[in-house]
Amino acid sequence: MTPSPFPPAQFQSFEEKSDPTNVAPRLAALRKAMKAAGVDYFLVPRADAHRGESVPVSEARLAYVTGFTGSAGLALIGLKDAHLFVDSRYTLQAPAQTDTALVEVHEVTSLSIDARRYVKKDAVVAYDPWLHTPGEVRDLAEKLKGYAKLISHDNLIDSIWHDRPAPPVSAIEILGHNRAGKTAADKIADLQATLADDGADAAVFTLPESICWLFNIRGRDVPNTPFVLGFAMVPKKGEPTLFLDPAKVTPELTRALDGIASIEATKKLTKTLEKLGKSEKAVLVDPASAPTAIVDLLGNSGAKLIEKRDPVLLPKSRKNEAELAGMREAHRLDGVALAKFLHWFDGEAPKGELTEIGIVTALEAFRREDESCVDASFDTISGAGPNGAIVHYRVSTKTDRRLNPGELMLVDSGAQYLSGTTDITRTLWTGKASAEQKDRYTRVLKGMIAISMARFPRGTSGAQIDVLARQFLWADGVTYNHGTGHGVGAYLGVHEGPIGISSRYSLPLEAGNVISNEPGYYKAGEYGIRIENLVVVRDAEGFPGYLEFETLTLAPIDTRLIEMTLLSDAERAWLNAFHKRIWDEIGPRVSGEVKDWLHRATAVI
Amino acid sequence: MTPSPFPPAQFQSFEEKSDPTNVAPRLAALRKAMKAAGVDYFLVPRADAHRGESVPVSEARLAYVTGFTGSAGLALIGLKDAHLFVDSRYTLQAPAQTDTALVEVHEVTSLSIDARRYVKKDAVVAYDPWLHTPGEVRDLAEKLKGYAKLISHDNLIDSIWHDRPAPPVSAIEILGHNRAGKTAADKIADLQATLADDGADAAVFTLPESICWLFNIRGRDVPNTPFVLGFAMVPKKGEPTLFLDPAKVTPELTRALDGIASIEATKKLTKTLEKLGKSEKAVLVDPASAPTAIVDLLGNSGAKLIEKRDPVLLPKSRKNEAELAGMREAHRLDGVALAKFLHWFDGEAPKGELTEIGIVTALEAFRREDESCVDASFDTISGAGPNGAIVHYRVSTKTDRRLNPGELMLVDSGAQYLSGTTDITRTLWTGKASAEQKDRYTRVLKGMIAISMARFPRGTSGAQIDVLARQFLWADGVTYNHGTGHGVGAYLGVHEGPIGISSRYSLPLEAGNVISNEPGYYKAGEYGIRIENLVVVRDAEGFPGYLEFETLTLAPIDTRLIEMTLLSDAERAWLNAFHKRIWDEIGPRVSGEVKDWLHRATAVI
Repeated sequence: MTPSPFPPAQFQSFEEKSDPTNVAPRLAALRKAMKAAGVDYFLVPRADAHRGESVPVSEARLAYVTGFTGSAGLALIGLKDAHLFVDSRYTLQAPAQTDTALVEVHEVTSLSIDARRYVKKDAVVAYDPWLHTPGEVRDLAEKLKGYAKLISHDNLIDSIWHDRPAPPVSAIEILGHNRAGKTAADKIADLQATLADDGADAAVFTLPESICWLFNIRGRDVPNTPFVLGFAMVPKKGEPTLFLDPAKVTPELTRALDGIASIEATKKLTKTLEKLGKSEKAVLVDPASAPTAIVDLLGNSGAKLIEKRDPVLLPKSRKNEAELAGMREAHRLDGVALAKFLHWFDGEAPKGELTEIGIVTALEAFRREDESCVDASFDTISGAGPNGAIVHYRVSTKTDRRLNPGELMLVDSGAQYLSGTTDITRTLWTGKASAEQKDRYTRVLKGMIAISMARFPRGTSGAQIDVLARQFLWADGVTYNHGTGHGVGAYLGVHEGPIGISSRYSLPLEAGNVISNEPGYYKAGEYGIRIENLVVVRDAEGFPGYLEFETLTLAPIDTRLIEMTLLSDAERAWLNAFHKRIWDEIGPRVSGEVKDWLHRATAVI
Repeated sequence: MTPSPFPPAQFQSFEEKSDPTNVAPRLAALRKAMKAAGVDYFLVPRADAHRGESVPVSEARLAYVTGFTGSAGLALIGLKDAHLFVDSRYTLQAPAQTDTALVEVHEVTSLSIDARRYVKKDAVVAYDPWLHTPGEVRDLAEKLKGYAKLISHDNLIDSIWHDRPAPPVSAIEILGHNRAGKTAADKIADLQATLADDGADAAVFTLPESICWLFNIRGRDVPNTPFVLGFAMVPKKGEPTLFLDPAKVTPELTRALDGIASIEATKKLTKTLEKLGKSEKAVLVDPASAPTAIVDLLGNSGAKLIEKRDPVLLPKSRKNEAELAGMREAHRLDGVALAKFLHWFDGEAPKGELTEIGIVTALEAFRREDESCVDASFDTISGAGPNGAIVHYRVSTKTDRRLNPGELMLVDSGAQYLSGTTDITRTLWTGKASAEQKDRYTRVLKGMIAISMARFPRGTSGAQIDVLARQFLWADGVTYNHGTGHGVGAYLGVHEGPIGISSRYSLPLEAGNVISNEPGYYKAGEYGIRIENLVVVRDAEGFPGYLEFETLTLAPIDTRLIEMTLLSDAERAWLNAFHKRIWDEIGPRVSGEVKDWLHRATAVI
C-alpha cells in the first residue's frame, strides 16, 4: 500500500483508548474506598452533570474504571462483582474493552428494570447525585424499596483517580450578531416572559447546548460539539447568572455579557440554589436532564420545584435567518469538501487499496482545507462492505478493513464549521452492485426523497411523517431499526432535541427546525445502506398553514446504485433538481478534475 | 315529482324528533325537583350507563329536557339558566332543536375545561353517578374544588319524566358457532387467564359490545347496533354472572348459557358489587367507560380497584376466521345492494328529480331485498352538493335537498346483516364535475389506495400509517378534519375501539382488525368527497413479520370523477384489480340491467 497522501486525522482517533489491564487495580482501589465508606455497590454512569454525548476526559469515569469508552452505559460496581450495562450498539465493543474476568457485561437499557437481580438484599447502593437525573434515582429507589438502601454519596472514583486530568478550560468564542441572529439580551427577555407564564421565579440550566445558545457563546470543552460546560440560573426578572470555571472567563467574555448576565464561579452554584430555596422561590428545572443534586438542593432548602422541559430547547430548535444562513454556508463548504472527497474516492476505490481509516483521514483532510472547519461533528462512521451494516460502527486500528472493489461503502460524517454543523451519509458504488443492493438502495432513496418532498399542515409531528421514509422498504417486508431523523444544532450538537422524525417525536415540526433525513437498510454480515441529507422546515409558499422541507446538504447522491425502474417521474425530477442545485452552488467553488467529476455526478438521469 | 317506487324507510326517520316547545315546561318541572332536592345545577349527559352511540328512548334524557337529539352532548341545568354543550358537529342542529330563549348552546368539548364560567360560587352541582365515568367526575370535581360542591344524586329527570318509555326488551339472539367462531366458554376461559395476569379477582363489564361478544349474544335494544343492554361480572375462577332485565331471559338463552354463566336481574348488580368489596377482592374496571356509580360501590365497600382498559376490547378487535367469513359474506350482500342502488342512481340522477331522503330510502330498500339485513348500522349520510361538505350531515324533512345534475353526491351508509356489519362511502358523479373536483377526488382516492396497498411491520399503529392517506391532499395544501379509519365490529358496533387509523390510535394494528379506510375532502358550501372501504388486517404472505390489508367492501368506485393523469401505474393496477374482484364476486349475484351496469362500472381503466 502506498503511504497516505493526507495528513493524519486530528478530529478522530483510531486507537482503542482503553486498556483492560487497568481494570483490576482500579476496581481494587475503588472497592477499598467503598469499604471505607460503608458502601456495598457504587454506580458509575457514562454521563457527566451536563449529559452531553461527549464528556471531557476528566469526566470519563466509566472508561476509567471499566475501560469501556462507548457513548452510553452504566456500571454497578459491587465489593465482589461488577456489572456493565450497555445498549445493543455496544454488545461487542464493551466486552472487548473491559476485563471480562472481572466485569460482567449485560445488554440492558435501564438498570431500574431489573435492579434486584444485581444487588444483594440489604446492601447499601451509592450514587453521585451530580451524575443522575431525579427520574433515574426515583425509578431505582422504587425498585429497591424494602430491599436495599440507595444513598447519595461523594464520587468514590474521584477519590481514587490520582492522575485525573484537569477539567477542560477552552477559549470561549462570542457569537456576533451576524451569526447568532438574536442578542443574548433578547433571548433572555423572551425566556423570562415564558418563565412568568409558567409561574416560575427562576429556571436553572444544566445543558451546555441551552446555555451556549442563550448566551451566544461557544467553546471547545468536549470533542465534536462546541460546548462551554457550565450552569446558568435565569430569574424571572433581572440578570441571569452564568456559572463557569473562572479560568475560562476572559475580558472579552466579561465585556460581551456586560449588562446582560453576571458571571460566577461554578462552585457558587450550590449557594445560589440554596438562596432560591430559602426565599421559597418557584424554580423550573428539567427532570430529564438536571442532576438530582440540583433538584435535591433546591427542594431541601425550600424551593417550589416546577418540573418542565428545559424552556430553551424549543426556541433553540427554531433556527433564525442568521443561523440558517450560517447553516447554508456550512453546507456549501461541506459540499466542496464532499465533492473533492467523492471525486478522490471514485478514482481510488477501484484500485482496492482503500481502508476505512484511510477514508476517514482523507475526508477530514478535504474538510480541513477550509480553515473554518474546526472539528468533526462526530466520529465518522466508515463502514466497508459488511461493516456498513453495523449502524453505529466506529473504525479502530483493530477493526480497520480494506474496501474491496464491488463492496458497498457507507460513510456517515459531519463537521463543525464556524458557520454551522453538518451531518451527511452517502453509500458509494465501488465497481459493481447486486440487483438486491440496487433495489434496497433505491427504496432507501425513495424514502429519503418522500421526506424531502413532503408538505404537511402546521401541527404535524415527526412521528406522523416517519412512515413516508419507510413505506417503500415496508412494501418489500424490510425496515431499519433507527429513527428517520434527529434535530441538528446550528454550530452546536449534531444531535439535539426535542424534535425529529420517528415514532418517539410527538412535538409538531416548526419552521426553522433543522433535522436529518436518513433512512437506511442493513443486511447483517453483508452490507449497509444509508442516505442522509439535512433539511430545514420552512413555510410552504403558496400553501397557507402548510410546511415543507428545504434541503441543506449539497453533495451528489450516487446514481450508479439506483434501479431506475423503481423511481417515479416525480422522484427522478426531485433528484435532478437536487443535483442541478449542487452543480449551481458547488460547481463555481471547485475546479479541474473535481469540477469535471461534479459535472458528471450531477448529470440529469 | 313522481311518487317514490320504494317502500318507506324503516331504519331511519327523517322527522325532527323533538319539539322546542316542550323545553319550557320540562325545565320548569326539573327546576322544581331541583329546588326540593336542594340542588342548584343538575347535569344531563347524552350518555346512558353503557355509553353506546345509540341510547334507547327510555334513556334519552338530554333530548327530553333540551330537545337536542345529537349523539353527544351535555346539559347543565341551573335554577335560572341552562347550558347545552355540544361539539362542532352539532353547532347548527342544537340551536335548531332546543328553545334558545331558555337554553344557551355552547361549542365546548368538555365541561370541566371551563366549569367555573357556568356555575355560581358555592352552588350545589348534582350528577347521576350511573351516567358519568370516574374520570369525568374527577376532572369536574378538580375544577370546582373550593368553588362549588359536586354531589352524586338520584336522577332528577327520571322523577319528572312521567310518560317515560319502558326500557327496551328485545329478543336475544344466540350466535351459533359458525358465526361466533369461538364458544363463550372459551372466550371466558381466555379472559379469566388475563385477569389472573392482571392480579384481578374479577372484572366488571358495562359496555354492551364487550358483553355481547363475550357471551355470543345479540339483541335489538338500541337502533343501528345489535346490542343487548346489561352488565356482567367475570370472576377469575368460576362462572360469570350476566345481569339482564328478567323480561329478556328466554329458555333459549338459559339453555345456551347453561354451565357457562349464571343470569341475574340487573337490580342484583349492586349487591354483587358490594359483596366483591366486602371480601376485599381486586376488581378490574375500565375507568374510560364504567359508570362512577360502579367504581364508587366497589371502592366504598372495600374492593381494591384495578383501573384498566376493558380486557375484552382487544380480543374482540381481532376477528376470528368465522367472524371474517361472516364479514366477507355481509360485504357480498352489501355489494349486491350497492350495485342495484348505484345502477338506479346512475339512471335517475341526470333527471334532476332525486332528493337526499329519496336516495336514503332507495338504498335501504335495495339492502332490505336481502332478508338478513336487519338494520342500518347508522343513519345514512346523504349529502347532495354543498350538504356533502357537512361531515356528519343527517338529512331531515327540513333540510332535504334536491340533487341537481352536475352536483357531487356523497352517500355514507352501512347495514347490519346477520352475517356482519358494513360501512361504505361513495361520492357519485351526476353529469359533470369541475377540474378542481376531479383533482380532489383523485387525491382522496390515491390516499384510500395508499392505505389499501400498505404493508407494515407488526407493531405498527394506526397513528403511524395515517399520513399515507393524507399525503396527496397535503401536497396541495389541504386535508380533512377527521380520522382516516375507525374499528368496526362483526355484527356489532359500526364504530368500535380501541384500534383505528388516526393520530389518536397508538395501539398496534393486529391480524383480524377490521377498520374503515375513508379519507375525504370538504369544501364548505360547495361539495364534499369521501371514499370509504372496510379493510381487514392480515399477515402479509411472503413477508414474515409484516401485515397488510384485505379489502372487504365490494362496490365500484366512480371512475368518471378520476383525473387519470394523477394516478400512478400502481394505483391504476390496484383499482383495476379491485374492480375485477367486484365483477368476479358480485357479477354472478346480479342480473339484467344491473349486471350490464356493473360490467361497465368495473371495466378496466
